[in-house]
Amino acid sequence: MSRVHGLTELFQMPKRQNIGLIRPLVHELHAYVPGEQPKIKGLIKLNTNENPYPPSPRVLKAVKAAVDGRLRLYPNPTAQVLREKLAKLHGCRAENIIIGNGSDELLAMAVRAFVEPATTEGTRRRTASASSRRRLQTVQYFHPSYSLYPVLADIHGAAKNAVALNTNFTLPSVRELEQGGRWDFHAALTFVTTPNAPSGRGYSTAALEKLCRAMKGVVVLDEAYVDFAGENALKLAMKYPHVIVSRTFSKAYSLCFQRVGYFVGNAELIAALDKIRDSYNVNGLGQVAAVTTLEDLAYYRVNFRKIISTREELSRALTRLGFRVLPSETNFILAQPPGTVLSAARGKSPRSRQDAGGTLDAKDWLQKLREKKILVRWFNQPEIKNFLRITIGTPAEAEALVRAVKAILR
Amino acid sequence: MSRVHGLTELFQMPKRQNIGLIRPLVHELHAYVPGEQPKIKGLIKLNTNENPYPPSPRVLKAVKAAVDGRLRLYPNPTAQVLREKLAKLHGCRAENIIIGNGSDELLAMAVRAFVEPATTEGTRRRTASASSRRRLQTVQYFHPSYSLYPVLADIHGAAKNAVALNTNFTLPSVRELEQGGRWDFHAALTFVTTPNAPSGRGYSTAALEKLCRAMKGVVVLDEAYVDFAGENALKLAMKYPHVIVSRTFSKAYSLCFQRVGYFVGNAELIAALDKIRDSYNVNGLGQVAAVTTLEDLAYYRVNFRKIISTREELSRALTRLGFRVLPSETNFILAQPPGTVLSAARGKSPRSRQDAGGTLDAKDWLQKLREKKILVRWFNQPEIKNFLRITIGTPAEAEALVRAVKAILR
Repeated sequence: MSRVHGLTELFQMPKRQNIGLIRPLVHELHAYVPGEQPKIKGLIKLNTNENPYPPSPRVLKAVKAAVDGRLRLYPNPTAQVLREKLAKLHGCRAENIIIGNGSDELLAMAVRAFVEPATTEGTRRRTASASSRRRLQTVQYFHPSYSLYPVLADIHGAAKNAVALNTNFTLPSVRELEQGGRWDFHAALTFVTTPNAPSGRGYSTAALEKLCRAMKGVVVLDEAYVDFAGENALKLAMKYPHVIVSRTFSKAYSLCFQRVGYFVGNAELIAALDKIRDSYNVNGLGQVAAVTTLEDLAYYRVNFRKIISTREELSRALTRLGFRVLPSETNFILAQPPGTVLSAARGKSPRSRQDAGGTLDAKDWLQKLREKKILVRWFNQPEIKNFLRITIGTPAEAEALVRAVKAILR
Repeated sequence: MSRVHGLTELFQMPKRQNIGLIRPLVHELHAYVPGEQPKIKGLIKLNTNENPYPPSPRVLKAVKAAVDGRLRLYPNPTAQVLREKLAKLHGCRAENIIIGNGSDELLAMAVRAFVEPATTEGTRRRTASASSRRRLQTVQYFHPSYSLYPVLADIHGAAKNAVALNTNFTLPSVRELEQGGRWDFHAALTFVTTPNAPSGRGYSTAALEKLCRAMKGVVVLDEAYVDFAGENALKLAMKYPHVIVSRTFSKAYSLCFQRVGYFVGNAELIAALDKIRDSYNVNGLGQVAAVTTLEDLAYYRVNFRKIISTREELSRALTRLGFRVLPSETNFILAQPPGTVLSAARGKSPRSRQDAGGTLDAKDWLQKLREKKILVRWFNQPEIKNFLRITIGTPAEAEALVRAVKAILR
């Protein structure tokens, strides 16, 4: 990278088209669009579900202390210390845990390990019927949920089966799924975001267990936000050999920057994922940060309580201003602004009735809030296009949001 | 991860076999075996080609300074600042550069972006003949070279074409490759480790250019060790739309721990890779370290000179002790211990002649050196099983190695 001898001329863009060199499948992909990470000064960033509180002082100290000559060395390739600590915390063995470069990496690896590309000849030979072939090729998920799942399926060339959640984004029961006729109980891989994103809804472990019991393929319960919820479904990964629970240090543990997530599950599934893992996929300082985090959980539990309390307060404030706010068990809320809540607003407070006649749709709200230096997230998808997804920040950030909303309503 | 309510019971290992849930392709894989990372006190670690010198003080300072509340935030998803700095250094544009979680991640992504799995039905339909189908499915590389390439091909379900280097690991000419009849000039993706690992041999840019010109598929010139060589082939990535140069901050820039590598190439190829990239694949502190590294290149150039000088001195010392040491343009040497150099040793110094009768093979040497707390690397592969690969450490480490060798020879 140094030692470039006299290469200061501009890159010569060759005329020849390179499309023939790229797999048609890849050429036709649309890349996943992550939330904006703008560098606007004074911006209140409530768009990517980051934790408003920094990592614990102990974690910062440990990471700083690790910034020394060891950076020249490879990190532990299997994140052994971290896996052992997590195993102890969760009451399982290290072989039941795999660490990823963020849980996103593991979600992508799950698709590659458990799902056949839709056009694999080998699959055709191995299986008798077209329907059973399709099952081996299917990535399944509820809609709406984490928008990465269809992207991962497309990258792999897998079939997708997106099935709508109930109205209000509650989880359909097994009976409802059977009656609906669209859910595939034999899908090779099913992702369930629980609590759900972007709705924020929590799902009971009892309901998730019934769903898992009905499934024949691998089920990944994506618990990225579970520390803000009333319960978690980790025991299902302990109980069922086809169930994996996905966790991350990003959101609850304030370590987005460091990229550390993990799966808990049956040792055979974990070993399969390990075979396709990059040898040194988890950076060393990320490992240090995560290990130290586990030694200071009390600090984070205080933050969870603060965020939950801010979430409830903000939900009440926005409701009073005519928003329809879905109940949340995460560190964000999905909220429908007044003016888009025509029917829902009828019969409520005079204020809501008045605002219901407004002409701002959710996308306008995104823009108006941005003008007031508050960034939230809006998804251009039919089921949620009337909503804003708002990350829970500090109490001061929540108050700033409420002030901005009031100013826009005026 | 906290909030695990009463899950202290041991993981209940279910009886049911999970093999049916895992893709047969993945189930049959053997995982890539990285070099050992043991935690033995006082061990001299010359087995994984790490740099013996720490990152520059300026880099350590910048990384430490970045360990603050920002860890809660996502890193820049496209490593924009780093890409711009690299573009400036290399005389290209940011769109010609993609950053990976180490260059290993990018090598894996290249396989996924440019090579069809060997059994893809879509490929069958698109192409007329069995031979052209095979070409779209082939990952090609010289043997021996970086042992990760066949692992990546297997993970993807691609066909492999490993073609032997010349005797003494020199690069075959295009004519030799044509005459050999085994090289596939239409392979979808060809990896060339240059300088070569594990032999250490450098290849001239002129020879590489001839090879690239003869190739119809994508060629990745894997320059992981190029900063220790006399020349580099970066200009070929500038000149040819199907050529990519791979670089890493791990070895020359003492940042293995941080996981930062990159590709330079045609914007279309880079864009294809970007589509299959995890959104936040490069951790934030790694980005900080790499950016600061580029601001302090003089520090590293001094280290390159020191390592090259130690390499030459160690090579001479081992040669005097009866080793056959291949010429190296990397930060390691491939050396054949006395006793395995029967024919080569004849007629040399009395010492070599005497040692040539020894009964230690290279694997024994690995063990003997380990007993003396020096770890080198041995590969169980026919072409190189009589060799040790020895990373160049500090002069003191090189002296310790020579002392250990003398003691073993005694």
